[in-house]
Amino acid sequence: MTRIDGHTILIGLMAYPIRHSMSPTMHNTAFEALNLNYAYLAFDIDGDQLADGVKAIRTLDMRGSNVSMPNKQAIIPHLDKLDISAKMTGAVNTVVNDDGILTGYTTDGVGFVNDLKKKGHDVAGKKMLVVGAGGAGIPIAAQSAIEGASEIRIANRQDGHFENAETIAKSINENSKASASTLSLEDEQAFKEALAWADIYVDATGVGMKPLEGMSLVNDPSWLKKDLVIYDTVYAPRTTKLMEVAKEAGVESVYNGLGMMIEQGAAAFKLWTGQDMPIDLVEQAMAEKDKEK
Amino acid sequence: MTRIDGHTILIGLMAYPIRHSMSPTMHNTAFEALNLNYAYLAFDIDGDQLADGVKAIRTLDMRGSNVSMPNKQAIIPHLDKLDISAKMTGAVNTVVNDDGILTGYTTDGVGFVNDLKKKGHDVAGKKMLVVGAGGAGIPIAAQSAIEGASEIRIANRQDGHFENAETIAKSINENSKASASTLSLEDEQAFKEALAWADIYVDATGVGMKPLEGMSLVNDPSWLKKDLVIYDTVYAPRTTKLMEVAKEAGVESVYNGLGMMIEQGAAAFKLWTGQDMPIDLVEQAMAEKDKEK
Repeated sequence: MTRIDGHTILIGLMAYPIRHSMSPTMHNTAFEALNLNYAYLAFDIDGDQLADGVKAIRTLDMRGSNVSMPNKQAIIPHLDKLDISAKMTGAVNTVVNDDGILTGYTTDGVGFVNDLKKKGHDVAGKKMLVVGAGGAGIPIAAQSAIEGASEIRIANRQDGHFENAETIAKSINENSKASASTLSLEDEQAFKEALAWADIYVDATGVGMKPLEGMSLVNDPSWLKKDLVIYDTVYAPRTTKLMEVAKEAGVESVYNGLGMMIEQGAAAFKLWTGQDMPIDLVEQAMAEKDKEK
Repeated sequence: MTRIDGHTILIGLMAYPIRHSMSPTMHNTAFEALNLNYAYLAFDIDGDQLADGVKAIRTLDMRGSNVSMPNKQAIIPHLDKLDISAKMTGAVNTVVNDDGILTGYTTDGVGFVNDLKKKGHDVAGKKMLVVGAGGAGIPIAAQSAIEGASEIRIANRQDGHFENAETIAKSINENSKASASTLSLEDEQAFKEALAWADIYVDATGVGMKPLEGMSLVNDPSWLKKDLVIYDTVYAPRTTKLMEVAKEAGVESVYNGLGMMIEQGAAAFKLWTGQDMPIDLVEQAMAEKDKEK
């Protein structure tokens, strides 16, 4: 018998294009496993439709929604409240509806921190180099600051919205105990020194993923020390060029972004349901779904 | 693995109160059985929210929605087109979204006619007495006229919106080949004569259902001839007082409204998906769900 009945509560995912997303498989698998009466559906929504999409959250008494490109910044004026994670990053990926009060969160950073924690690394007290001040790098830098990283250097190309790096560095310095600064990626010497200085290196640029598959910001293994923790936010392919270079350099702790993707979903799941997502089951279901394609 | 993925299309049920409805169990069971990628969810919507509810059908690219009390008439100004069934009854229970064009239908009458057909009775050429010019009686009378009933008498209390009976009788006379007239329920002699005259007697008043359980408009078995086809639109309880009186009178063809309820859903299902609902499976799932309560 179907599990959806008259009491089932809707949760959305509003973005465009989005129908290919694995998030519905992730969340519905978890709802079924925990016997929670929700259904998570994706909706193609962007630009002009976003205001009506948010209105639908209220009208249909939805528990909330995930939000992705191109709505992460644009949704903010339509919400009632922002969590610190959304305030610091200026972006929202999760909306929670509490009796008509809509609060925006960004769980990407929590996803990164929690995944790294699971892998045995705590950001607290660490020196971090985060490359790429975009949709992944900004929340990673912000959440790492919230969770006690001591120093964070945010590297970006000068010609690629460098002001975003400066904005998040400023926000971190104002809103947390961490000390943040920026670095121009065009300055190769400074980049090399930052790699030598850092405890944790995060590549949040998308380099290594289509259409930049097979490429890396670091191609010389000698730039990487063996005890550096390396995190590439890309998860398709599972092994990026950066990860190959890192292995060649003998670096032990090298990770792709799959865990972060799952953990950001688990953090949203927790916000909506108050419960822990059954990660193993979810990973299994996503792998099966992936095989269907 | 969960069947809901990023490609799943939402279909709604907008009414208030509605969370107790069995329709989500009906439709989702059928979607799963036929491997159709839809999910059917109920939403508490009435009055002020209805315009936004209809907007959500468009914004979320929903395939459509069922509509029930108190929205059946109120939704009409928000739609783009009306089917003949909706035009004649002035009510809508099903909305179909074809690329942003919303068409309203009423499938309650089709549900009645199809269920009766399954039970071996065709309304074509028949004389019908329909009691109760409300949400059930009006579409039953209208669809019976569309499907070729020869004469239809619509009975109602004078003090209970008798004008509704006159309106639907007029619409039938104008829009179909059937001949329709009204009858005042306060005129007991006329009611008895109509029962003697009719081939098919439909009680669409809700008498016999809570809070009128155990009551019937007909209490004297001698008012009912043995070859009368008797249809009570009530299905909770499964056997009404009218049905008991009919059995006592030796009437053979006596039915409750369960089949109509399922067939109106099957008609909506067909409008949305183009496919026949697997009725047996659906009945089984609804019986199981009913036991849970």
